[in-house]
Amino acid sequence: MFCITSPDFSSRSQIQDKINNKTKPLGSLGKLEQVAEQIAQIQQQTQLSIKQPHMVVFAADHGIASHNISIAPQAVTQQMVANFLQGGAAINCFCRSNDMAMTVVDAGILVEPDDHPMLKKQRIAAGTQDFSQQAAMTHEQAQQAMAYGADIVHQIHQSGCNTIGFGEMGIGNTSSATAIMASLLHLPLDECIGRGTGISDEQLNTKAELIGKGLDIHQGKLDTPLDILANVGGFEIAQMVGAMLQAAQNQMLILVDGFIATASAFLAVRMYPEANHYFIYCHCSQEAGHQRMLSQLEATPLLDLGLRLGEGTGAALALPLLKAACAFYNDMASFDQAGVTV
Amino acid sequence: MFCITSPDFSSRSQIQDKINNKTKPLGSLGKLEQVAEQIAQIQQQTQLSIKQPHMVVFAADHGIASHNISIAPQAVTQQMVANFLQGGAAINCFCRSNDMAMTVVDAGILVEPDDHPMLKKQRIAAGTQDFSQQAAMTHEQAQQAMAYGADIVHQIHQSGCNTIGFGEMGIGNTSSATAIMASLLHLPLDECIGRGTGISDEQLNTKAELIGKGLDIHQGKLDTPLDILANVGGFEIAQMVGAMLQAAQNQMLILVDGFIATASAFLAVRMYPEANHYFIYCHCSQEAGHQRMLSQLEATPLLDLGLRLGEGTGAALALPLLKAACAFYNDMASFDQAGVTV
Repeated sequence: MFCITSPDFSSRSQIQDKINNKTKPLGSLGKLEQVAEQIAQIQQQTQLSIKQPHMVVFAADHGIASHNISIAPQAVTQQMVANFLQGGAAINCFCRSNDMAMTVVDAGILVEPDDHPMLKKQRIAAGTQDFSQQAAMTHEQAQQAMAYGADIVHQIHQSGCNTIGFGEMGIGNTSSATAIMASLLHLPLDECIGRGTGISDEQLNTKAELIGKGLDIHQGKLDTPLDILANVGGFEIAQMVGAMLQAAQNQMLILVDGFIATASAFLAVRMYPEANHYFIYCHCSQEAGHQRMLSQLEATPLLDLGLRLGEGTGAALALPLLKAACAFYNDMASFDQAGVTV
Repeated sequence: MFCITSPDFSSRSQIQDKINNKTKPLGSLGKLEQVAEQIAQIQQQTQLSIKQPHMVVFAADHGIASHNISIAPQAVTQQMVANFLQGGAAINCFCRSNDMAMTVVDAGILVEPDDHPMLKKQRIAAGTQDFSQQAAMTHEQAQQAMAYGADIVHQIHQSGCNTIGFGEMGIGNTSSATAIMASLLHLPLDECIGRGTGISDEQLNTKAELIGKGLDIHQGKLDTPLDILANVGGFEIAQMVGAMLQAAQNQMLILVDGFIATASAFLAVRMYPEANHYFIYCHCSQEAGHQRMLSQLEATPLLDLGLRLGEGTGAALALPLLKAACAFYNDMASFDQAGVTV
């Protein structure tokens, strides 16, 4: 379905030399040097660039959310989508603040929203099935969702964008992400589960029980990433997986947000390992398990601001660091140029 | 000399309510919420703003640097100042990338640089004395340096700036900062010393020996912040202390960079404790001891990117996070406004 190739690593030592000859002690720009190297590897240009950066927020509802295992009722998914479209959510503020365009995708909200210029309707169904009882979606739905996600990235790329971030909204989606993580890493549930945006002890117990039940009933059917996605995933997660893979195929810079986005990235990497070269892990969320997934992916995220909101907020906040990495790579003088003693 | 007052905290609960009623789970924007609260407390406005943000880089030479205890020879101070003025250093790139103006101050470089529109000459002398042998400067020089630092901030503030960052350049200045830290915190030297931008074991031993000798010969004369500044400080550090205090008096937002800047901030806070309300600690550097100073100041820095460069780089890189904090405080919808169920 996708054709994803690694960047050309033959220029690696040339890129490293260029960074090492900048007028600064060796390695003294820390993670920014790694980001610059990654971008240079992907773009293969002497002048790196962030072109028309774009945030895509995928929204969908989850059958499992009917059990009251989130701090907010299920109706908040559609209410927050309305908030996105009115420009009033955190992700809107951060996109505006960092000059990032924004698109909202209805990947399968319970109630279909009205048309809006910022909205793309790519609905699979009115929410997934409750994965503690049955498969969240069929394999066909999972594949359709991935294709939709790829579509929107294709369009955005065609319009000149080379840097894309992905966010999500879906009450209950940390349950899906937790089940995905436990399945991919073969870890006990209690090492993956967390409080999402801030649930009570009682809700946490119910959440654990339901996810555990889900993992039990799908046992033996969680072998491939697509199986996992279909059985315990979500429509916004499935579209994000397809979107990430399309962006990797297009050799774009891909800003990965928090727990849900990292679970999606992990599925994408299990499908196409080369995709990981295009992912820039933007922040470490407060959700238990996120740090563990990141270390499995050998990712050292850029920001650690104590965020636990999702929506793509961590990705949008990291964009200026990518611009700064390009700026020093492009414009900083070498020891020779500046006449500075090495 | 300075008149620094705390922000008016009577509006604290009003500010917290405004943040808590934004359409997001309580506290889910982590450190950005603390920054927004701090800015709102300082500015006392419903619309927060970052106006004409400005970076001031203070440069000076250090007598102690003649002992070869840095990765670079002493001449690199003036070479890097030339690099700043040509726009080729890391701090130039990050200021351009984040729309920050920049001024370089000659606070006492060995060789006086040529005139340049970006340069302010506020020289105290051609470098400090070697503090392992004698006082780095006289008390009069320390006070003159602080007054010069205050002057430049006064001018920048007059031109409409409300947000200011401070950087430094001075081969050998981690030795001064280490001695300042050890004196202020009454800590053994080995808990304060580090490798600066990356010295060898042998250089580290020499550095420890020299700083230890300096602390010994000045024993009994390190009681007040001004004593410490004069005996073991540097001209760029002294100007930065004065600059920070003037900025606090003007109720500006003050971006504090790494180890040297934090040592300066610590001196400023010991002189005028209220100044700490205006400091935004921007990043945690790789230098041993920086984290310890930060925790003494009850500071949780915004970034942890593994930087060990100075120049104000960490402060410039954090500026977009301040803008993002203002953006969500100003523009994010409340639950009521957006019709989102609490």
